[in-house]
Amino acid sequence: MNPEDPRLQTLLEFLRFPSVSTQKTHLADMAACAEWLAALMKSNGLEAEVCGTGGHPVVLGWTRRDPAKRTVLIYGHYDVQPPDPLEEWESPPFEPVVRDGRVFARGATDNKGQLLAHVLGVAETLEADGAPPVNVIFLIEGEEEIGSPHLPAFIAENRERLACAAVAISDTGMAAPGWPTLSYALRGVAALECVVRGPARDLHSGIYGGVVMNPAAAAARLVAGLHDDNGRVAIAGFYDAVRGLEEWERRAAAEAPVGEKDFLEQTGAPALFGEAGFLPLEQIGARPTAEVNGIGGGYQGEGTKTVIPATALFKLTFRLVPDQKADDILTLAERHLRAHTPRGVTLEIRRGHSGEPFLSNPMRPYALAAQTALKKTFGRKPLLMREGGSIPILNVFQETLGAEVLLLALAWPDCRAHSPNENFPLENFAAGIRLNRIFLGEAAKAPPPGDVAPDLLEKAARTC
Amino acid sequence: MNPEDPRLQTLLEFLRFPSVSTQKTHLADMAACAEWLAALMKSNGLEAEVCGTGGHPVVLGWTRRDPAKRTVLIYGHYDVQPPDPLEEWESPPFEPVVRDGRVFARGATDNKGQLLAHVLGVAETLEADGAPPVNVIFLIEGEEEIGSPHLPAFIAENRERLACAAVAISDTGMAAPGWPTLSYALRGVAALECVVRGPARDLHSGIYGGVVMNPAAAAARLVAGLHDDNGRVAIAGFYDAVRGLEEWERRAAAEAPVGEKDFLEQTGAPALFGEAGFLPLEQIGARPTAEVNGIGGGYQGEGTKTVIPATALFKLTFRLVPDQKADDILTLAERHLRAHTPRGVTLEIRRGHSGEPFLSNPMRPYALAAQTALKKTFGRKPLLMREGGSIPILNVFQETLGAEVLLLALAWPDCRAHSPNENFPLENFAAGIRLNRIFLGEAAKAPPPGDVAPDLLEKAARTC
Repeated sequence: MNPEDPRLQTLLEFLRFPSVSTQKTHLADMAACAEWLAALMKSNGLEAEVCGTGGHPVVLGWTRRDPAKRTVLIYGHYDVQPPDPLEEWESPPFEPVVRDGRVFARGATDNKGQLLAHVLGVAETLEADGAPPVNVIFLIEGEEEIGSPHLPAFIAENRERLACAAVAISDTGMAAPGWPTLSYALRGVAALECVVRGPARDLHSGIYGGVVMNPAAAAARLVAGLHDDNGRVAIAGFYDAVRGLEEWERRAAAEAPVGEKDFLEQTGAPALFGEAGFLPLEQIGARPTAEVNGIGGGYQGEGTKTVIPATALFKLTFRLVPDQKADDILTLAERHLRAHTPRGVTLEIRRGHSGEPFLSNPMRPYALAAQTALKKTFGRKPLLMREGGSIPILNVFQETLGAEVLLLALAWPDCRAHSPNENFPLENFAAGIRLNRIFLGEAAKAPPPGDVAPDLLEKAARTC
Repeated sequence: MNPEDPRLQTLLEFLRFPSVSTQKTHLADMAACAEWLAALMKSNGLEAEVCGTGGHPVVLGWTRRDPAKRTVLIYGHYDVQPPDPLEEWESPPFEPVVRDGRVFARGATDNKGQLLAHVLGVAETLEADGAPPVNVIFLIEGEEEIGSPHLPAFIAENRERLACAAVAISDTGMAAPGWPTLSYALRGVAALECVVRGPARDLHSGIYGGVVMNPAAAAARLVAGLHDDNGRVAIAGFYDAVRGLEEWERRAAAEAPVGEKDFLEQTGAPALFGEAGFLPLEQIGARPTAEVNGIGGGYQGEGTKTVIPATALFKLTFRLVPDQKADDILTLAERHLRAHTPRGVTLEIRRGHSGEPFLSNPMRPYALAAQTALKKTFGRKPLLMREGGSIPILNVFQETLGAEVLLLALAWPDCRAHSPNENFPLENFAAGIRLNRIFLGEAAKAPPPGDVAPDLLEKAARTC
């Protein structure tokens, strides 16, 4: 894509909004970004509306609804993660630049670049054909990075207006550059925050060391007790509801062009460490985890302070897979933590946000249409993959709208979503625009939705 | 002591110096405080000198040396801990006030109040008798709170000038108000700082959770692995050099007027937790510990951040008892930590400061003189106690000067050394002045130093 391409210029404009949903100082930027998106769609032949919610607005866009056509909803989000640590960016996060065929900016891949490709794809179809082969609705929220607190209610209230056969989303990752990927599962997430309290105040570790349980040590014991020595979660019942992998899924993971070496490179870890008996792709996509996202207690500054801290904290998130339920897992975890709390301290547990795991059948009609479109766009049979992240809203699309949910990956593993130097390859931006046109055509031709025929599962085994 | 008492006014003056040795902004305050001390001693009939060191100055004071008399050195320090957290003080830390019979200020008990009692005690003797019954040397340093980095060299260089039979120090605690206490042992201390490194940068815990070892979890495992479930240190060989308690020591601890209830009150912990088979006083004074003074990794702010941190840290101090050696224990600990470092992370270990444990025989001649003086001052037979804190310089006094070291406690457990609202009871200030006079008299009468006769150990059993 040449640097003067107006589509690239539009992307750069989009990326200049510091639309950080979690920071109050960016309230006006969020509103301006939403208005800009609506105006963009209007100037490209769509109708559009900025809709108030209890939080940041939702932007709706749509082509004129033709009752004879099916409807595809395209979901995305215009909000982004905070950009810090700022000092690690090679160029400012909200001053997008093109280097080595990539756009660098916060939100470049998550989700502005991937989302805009779809908007521009529909614009091209409108310009070329007058109307797309399916009705299109854009549902673009501003709260994805803070857990979509207002979206479920918005979808429920606008159920009729948002009625659709399929929801397409480009907010996931390709297994590797050049490998088109249809993700058919995401993990759920459930968060706990724990505070361990011991002495009434910080104590001198000489004068009192030996008679009290140290809350930082107790926190460490509780965190350490979440796993056995082999890295398996040690909470009783934790794996009970985990659905086993299908034969074809194991084969797909084994044959995917991504293995230990890739994850070593991507993470920079000195060695991998995961649950025995599973491939890295399976450990990430198909196995649940208990992860400590933060731990803290006592003195963390320079040098030594001989203190027994009065309190310590740790923050946990569990990634969940079908058929685990977030509430059940949190209950098991709480029970485990309470049972293992050492004498001499008390434990306070607070539940954080949670979302159920997502699993779809990649052999249903629109998923097959998506696979065909991915193949035509990238020139290679797509991989079917489970992903490790969480997009809790997907279950709302499935349950409230009864729609098939399709995850059409446009990001590469090194696009650094949520990290400094986030970027989006221009070739994926262009591919996304093509993909949108092709996919809408395939979706129009898909067989009518219905239960999956057994021979499609057979086909799945051959596809992977 | 009445509020107009000039001795109290002198104490308030002393406490107004913000002599925080660890903070560079207080360099001038440190120097001014040292000069003030020297001037005070001169105006009270002693000779005095402010001696430069590589760091904060040492203040020496002395009575004219009579070769016919023995010499007692009194050690103390004019530096104090930083006063923060400031918001927890009921009155400003360097604006001393008297409330409920106590002086509240940083340094009130540690060590200005206890030290000044001795200076004023000698002043009273000089005024009343013209000369004390022993030669007196005051050695008052300004770096106790930062580990006395320059004092061992100073003592070695001034060995002749500081020659003495006994060193008296009031910088420890009475077992309980009204219970005179001679501490005959202190624990040593040895510090380690550990950094656990995993991925090259913070990772998204959804996208990568399951294939890498989380450094915060690894830190927790390492910290948790330092103890078994019963609170015993799990490092191989850790207890090998620990000298058992003598029969009389166990009896003394059992009969001391301090037990579980007192430690529950003092610490505010919901329950005590210590090594099985030992009384709280023994757990603190006679048993070694491994304590985590700080642990940190990942996100510790409000809410949730789904991150696998790239690094985590923890800070350990070990309290040591005879005959453990700091270097040996650090070597064992390092070996243990390395052996338990999980795959997928690396461990960096740095050694911090260390000091050997201190143990003296409370039945030697000057210790017996000290016991007699404590009994006469407080009207009750003194308790013999091991303390949990560390004063590494004591071994230098024993080894470089060959002197008996006597710890004459004047603080109460609720004097809050190192904490907000530090205070010193005026009755202990007055008692300290009395104690100094009586002790110097008893020291003059003590039998000549020599090995302890077996019958003194017999007597110890009866004393306690």
